[in-house]
Amino acid sequence: MTAVAQLSSVLEAGGPELARRLQGTEVRLSEVAESHGAELAGHASGTLAAGGKRLRPILVFLCGGTGAEGPLAAAVAVELLHMATLVHDDVLDQASLRRGRPTVLATGGRHAATATGDFLFSRAFAELAATRSAAAVRALSAASSALARGELMQRADAWSVDVTSERYLERCELKTASLFSQACRLGAILGDASKASRDALGGFGRRVGLAFQILDDVLDVSGPAERTGKHRGTDLLDGTVTLPLIVARGRDAELERMDLRAAVTDPAQADALCERIAATGALGVARSEALGHVAEAKAGLVDVELPPGRRKALDLVADGVVERYA
Amino acid sequence: MTAVAQLSSVLEAGGPELARRLQGTEVRLSEVAESHGAELAGHASGTLAAGGKRLRPILVFLCGGTGAEGPLAAAVAVELLHMATLVHDDVLDQASLRRGRPTVLATGGRHAATATGDFLFSRAFAELAATRSAAAVRALSAASSALARGELMQRADAWSVDVTSERYLERCELKTASLFSQACRLGAILGDASKASRDALGGFGRRVGLAFQILDDVLDVSGPAERTGKHRGTDLLDGTVTLPLIVARGRDAELERMDLRAAVTDPAQADALCERIAATGALGVARSEALGHVAEAKAGLVDVELPPGRRKALDLVADGVVERYA
Repeated sequence: MTAVAQLSSVLEAGGPELARRLQGTEVRLSEVAESHGAELAGHASGTLAAGGKRLRPILVFLCGGTGAEGPLAAAVAVELLHMATLVHDDVLDQASLRRGRPTVLATGGRHAATATGDFLFSRAFAELAATRSAAAVRALSAASSALARGELMQRADAWSVDVTSERYLERCELKTASLFSQACRLGAILGDASKASRDALGGFGRRVGLAFQILDDVLDVSGPAERTGKHRGTDLLDGTVTLPLIVARGRDAELERMDLRAAVTDPAQADALCERIAATGALGVARSEALGHVAEAKAGLVDVELPPGRRKALDLVADGVVERYA
Repeated sequence: MTAVAQLSSVLEAGGPELARRLQGTEVRLSEVAESHGAELAGHASGTLAAGGKRLRPILVFLCGGTGAEGPLAAAVAVELLHMATLVHDDVLDQASLRRGRPTVLATGGRHAATATGDFLFSRAFAELAATRSAAAVRALSAASSALARGELMQRADAWSVDVTSERYLERCELKTASLFSQACRLGAILGDASKASRDALGGFGRRVGLAFQILDDVLDVSGPAERTGKHRGTDLLDGTVTLPLIVARGRDAELERMDLRAAVTDPAQADALCERIAATGALGVARSEALGHVAEAKAGLVDVELPPGRRKALDLVADGVVERYA
């Protein structure tokens, strides 16, 4: 399914108030980007305007309801935090394009991009502070620390042959699932949900985040570039060992012996390795793992009290993360 | 005066409780560094252990009193934020040493250093969230955003001949004075000071921060390296236009016409330019400007109710920032 078709079905289920809140989120994100001097406005506005699926704000609203002001601040905060990490990632990966637009790194250089990321980080916490909820600030801090730990773990494990699927999943928890989980939890906290509902919704976000990351890693191997918008095998070139390679190694003795750093040094080699991984059937295994997390995510919502429209929208979001091409 | 002599006189005036609180700050900083996995612990602990003067935590305690728990969290938070910016600065400056120890960049690389900085950022907000004060989180966010804006402004103005002393002071506000000011304000907020006292103490911190940055910039020109621990003229090599150069340009027509980027490309040229700046008497002018801010900082405390020991300690901190060599 295309991203637009997915979003419109989620919006239909979530009701008109969800669409209004997402528009409110865009307005507030623009205000934040433009309110701190001309230098920053250019860099931050470009980053925010590049858009994306706003999946994390959607989760905040679907878990928190659309009635109170708190979830709006949380939606803005999680998106700012997400943007901050993207801007820093682009510096580290020396990426000149993201979603077809020049990155802050490309337009402003390393100093500007690092500072813009730091600024987006601090604005995320400032937005959330306005809710006067210490639990909310703690939740965002937990996600933010996890993101940093995940990045460190990824570098520590680069090109390693010892990355097990358990270790890989731990990295997915830190890099992706934590922010998805805390987005849901933030919605629940600020929507005054019960402790049990907060935990259940946080668990839902975690599972959806795991599925999202696994599918991202499948798409990096499966391509094709026309659909994902990226070359195949960028993770392999980067030394990032993901589930498809881990599974394939268990099925192909030559892959198991391969030294990734020596074997993959250019895009053509990465492409060939993607073929070889796919030939083992590893992509199906990884996709099944992602689908398993989606099923568990949905099952975990059964006991949570939710209006039918929001429940349906959450199910659609969960299904959507594995039914995408980019 | 040496840093140790300065610190001991501040501690004497501040009383034994200040020393205990600073020890508590060290303990908590270590706990934070060690509590998030082995990869981070190594990088973060090294950064924290490298020490520094802990000037910002001292300001928190002197403005907030030492009785409540809140100021401890704020002291830890401001130091974590300061550390985060240092780690990111080291990445941008490609610095391999800081305070005589290898930087995170040197030991772990760009990815680890960027992630460590991001982690320290998020932990700063997590510490402060424990105080349940939204005003406190807002104060830290304001400082954090200002730091990012200051960094951006510095890059935007690099090698520019158009940097006026007003523009330079605006950059000092953002880069340095804001965190000093918010450290004082955080102490006052969490020590339950009145609105008037918060503003007065925040203003004190701002003035002290301005003086601190101006003196830093004087020391970069005056050297000598044995005392400051750095080569002279690093700002000039970097294209950073500071008050000594701005003043010197107004007094030396040849300097006014000079293209900094073309004229200073190696340490020997930077050293020669430092001599030339010093010969105009610009360092004395800049030092006077710093002393003026110190005098205004102290004068602004007159109407604030403070125990005599804390007032004396604050005066000593203010005097200390211009009576230092590093």
